[in-house]
Amino acid sequence: MMNYNFAIRRKRGIQILFRHFYHKRISQLFQPINIISKDATGKKEELVSISQKLLVDCGIVRPRGNGMFAFMPLGQRVLAKLTDLIDEEMKLVGAQKMLLPTLTSGHLWKKTGRWKTTGDELVKVKDRHDKDYVLSPTHEEAVVDMLSEVYHLSYRNLPLRLYQISSKFRDEANPRFGLLRCKEFLMKDLYTFDQDEASAISTYDQVSEAYNAIFQRLGVPFVKVAGDCGNIGGSFSHEYHYPAAIGQDTLLICNGCGYSVNSELVSDSNNTNCSSCGGVITTTKGFEVGHTFLLGTKYSDPLNCSYQNENGRRSLVQMGCYGIGVSRVLAAAVEALSSETGIRWPWVIAPYKVCIIGPKRGSKEANLTSWVHFLTDTIGSIKSFQDDIIIDDRDTFTIGKRVMEAKKTGYPFIIVVGKKASELVPRFELIENITNNVQLFSHVQLLDFLRGK
Amino acid sequence: MMNYNFAIRRKRGIQILFRHFYHKRISQLFQPINIISKDATGKKEELVSISQKLLVDCGIVRPRGNGMFAFMPLGQRVLAKLTDLIDEEMKLVGAQKMLLPTLTSGHLWKKTGRWKTTGDELVKVKDRHDKDYVLSPTHEEAVVDMLSEVYHLSYRNLPLRLYQISSKFRDEANPRFGLLRCKEFLMKDLYTFDQDEASAISTYDQVSEAYNAIFQRLGVPFVKVAGDCGNIGGSFSHEYHYPAAIGQDTLLICNGCGYSVNSELVSDSNNTNCSSCGGVITTTKGFEVGHTFLLGTKYSDPLNCSYQNENGRRSLVQMGCYGIGVSRVLAAAVEALSSETGIRWPWVIAPYKVCIIGPKRGSKEANLTSWVHFLTDTIGSIKSFQDDIIIDDRDTFTIGKRVMEAKKTGYPFIIVVGKKASELVPRFELIENITNNVQLFSHVQLLDFLRGK
Repeated sequence: MMNYNFAIRRKRGIQILFRHFYHKRISQLFQPINIISKDATGKKEELVSISQKLLVDCGIVRPRGNGMFAFMPLGQRVLAKLTDLIDEEMKLVGAQKMLLPTLTSGHLWKKTGRWKTTGDELVKVKDRHDKDYVLSPTHEEAVVDMLSEVYHLSYRNLPLRLYQISSKFRDEANPRFGLLRCKEFLMKDLYTFDQDEASAISTYDQVSEAYNAIFQRLGVPFVKVAGDCGNIGGSFSHEYHYPAAIGQDTLLICNGCGYSVNSELVSDSNNTNCSSCGGVITTTKGFEVGHTFLLGTKYSDPLNCSYQNENGRRSLVQMGCYGIGVSRVLAAAVEALSSETGIRWPWVIAPYKVCIIGPKRGSKEANLTSWVHFLTDTIGSIKSFQDDIIIDDRDTFTIGKRVMEAKKTGYPFIIVVGKKASELVPRFELIENITNNVQLFSHVQLLDFLRGK
Repeated sequence: MMNYNFAIRRKRGIQILFRHFYHKRISQLFQPINIISKDATGKKEELVSISQKLLVDCGIVRPRGNGMFAFMPLGQRVLAKLTDLIDEEMKLVGAQKMLLPTLTSGHLWKKTGRWKTTGDELVKVKDRHDKDYVLSPTHEEAVVDMLSEVYHLSYRNLPLRLYQISSKFRDEANPRFGLLRCKEFLMKDLYTFDQDEASAISTYDQVSEAYNAIFQRLGVPFVKVAGDCGNIGGSFSHEYHYPAAIGQDTLLICNGCGYSVNSELVSDSNNTNCSSCGGVITTTKGFEVGHTFLLGTKYSDPLNCSYQNENGRRSLVQMGCYGIGVSRVLAAAVEALSSETGIRWPWVIAPYKVCIIGPKRGSKEANLTSWVHFLTDTIGSIKSFQDDIIIDDRDTFTIGKRVMEAKKTGYPFIIVVGKKASELVPRFELIENITNNVQLFSHVQLLDFLRGK
């Protein structure tokens, strides 16, 4: 059973010896740049956001019909990094990863009433036996129904925290702004189960801390506001927003007491002073990237999800649910950080942290190409850059053209092996994408500089 | 932008200091054991396979209605390990990971004719504007249509190899055998694009080698046979099967020339002698876990997917497609390896490699619990066991009961901290699950033994 094939291990060993074969080369990368037909990006100019334009132009995503997107290899890498980051923080808060089916039985949504209340955004499917399903936009019904089958669920099993990262569906009437408002999207959804309200609130606070950590690590300025419970329900909720001029939501932030709220929750949103402290209210637009809800028994009651308490009696579980729009974070971060001319990625989710550009074929420096591999190997031996370097080996293109493209794609650091590499002490240009700062470094200086990042 | 919050880093640092908090403890694991209602596993006894029974009984998966399953935390871990293994081998063969939408426009499936030919197994969906979609069982149409938009696709971009791992859908008339034949499943699908047939065949051979590597590393005996191209089409195909008494397919294997074929391809499958060499034919039943197809231009022709060749002319791309049923591999491996009483996992995808069981509360050895943490930390420092240890800390249960459960769940190694740990030179029981072999080891001997695994 454990007859691991050593020939394969050897094969892999050899390939690791020639390490630079392992680093991604742009000549081999599928990155369909700038080749969009006008139909594909949406017909009305005003519906196109900066992020959509840049992400499509740079071959990070491809539009696939109205409100749907395919993730190209660079986009897939960003999603994988986002997923890893979220997984780390979910683990720290004791949440366990699982995977529920995309399809949820319609009868569960009828039991909670959401079959009707969700409206046309809910995608309904029938199987060959005419049974109703929902192409799930969220999984409260599914997870509660599953848990309600665990007949001997006891207070000892609580608190319980289960989450998944999977595709969700919403039949938007007017999909727009690319990934920011589309029909199919990647979402992290966490569901928590507690014995009583006090414990559920403690869970809510812990998860909120994890959310703060996630958004702080992403490094995009974010606003947390009291939110509307809407069709999800429950007693209160908070939203996490990335600021954006084209944001769907208007957020009111009191400069006095710091209370922040989605304008949907306020009866008179034109009020310029805070109703509790009288402070001045600032208004800003944002895109919701996360939402946390204290649910109470809104779902455990109709779906009868109970546990046995210390006295042997059964009580309904107290719930919370917590979403992060994974593909939306990708787009909203680009929307918040980028200029019109180029993407800027949050450091922790940049598709590659370093792009190394070698000399042009036929130039005087063409014989310096070996530096590219040497730099790749030595920088790649720094842990935080391991597997995070891409080489632009398209040596029929000028260095200038490749630097432009690397800047637009948003690699945080661009290293150029050019003329200066032929000096007695070879030096290399390091371009910091955010600041546009260019520095000339020897190999040792370069490694020292990057080790500090 | 890079204002990584150091408070978080510190918090994580502290948690890593107390490393054993980080290892999973069964008291905190959501593993709903043995609590299935009869309805949920299917009403007819003959439709329940060994794998389905064991996977549900051990809380690895949960049935969610007819032909659908949720993956519990242990199941999710197995899927993640399978995904990593496949990702590694795909990378070695130069395939790039991407993600296509689950929904594919119906008009593409109409263009290739599969809207009709797929029959009732195809799940069709309409959006609010009455537009047709397919809940994709496979993505030939989607990927070819996407590529056909890349107007300046050139011979320099070929060969191109794109894959994804995502949920697929098939509206089975009679879902059965759990994950082996269900409505929603996880599949890895790779699509390859080449300039001409010779190059496409070379790609086919390279991918076949990757498939051999994947199945060899999994270590479950597998049979590779010539397959039926069916509704996917193309000029030839090969299937990878795991043997199973309840297998859907009958495989004919010639003991003479070694030619193996799915009986679907043979006009007279009762023939006991090979038509080419006269050798004796053995028959075996199997479950298909992988399928590779040389497609030619079956999809690039109707969807007009062409590239510019060296002479500046446009030619249709030559395709291949290659599937691995990821969730099916999980179930079929359990089906092939397990006994009626307990799961046996392929070593590389076992949810945890080691389960450590501590003394019972109130027993003479109760004071030896610190050994559990010490063993966990030291074994965890061996690279191949890092993050792959689970502690059964349910100390109100006897050691015997916990060993039984650990055996059934299929952890390859079970370590018991019991009476012998109180001797002058403390010793620990190591149970090898496959062989049922029990050895007594000192701490040093235990580490030496496991380092060799």
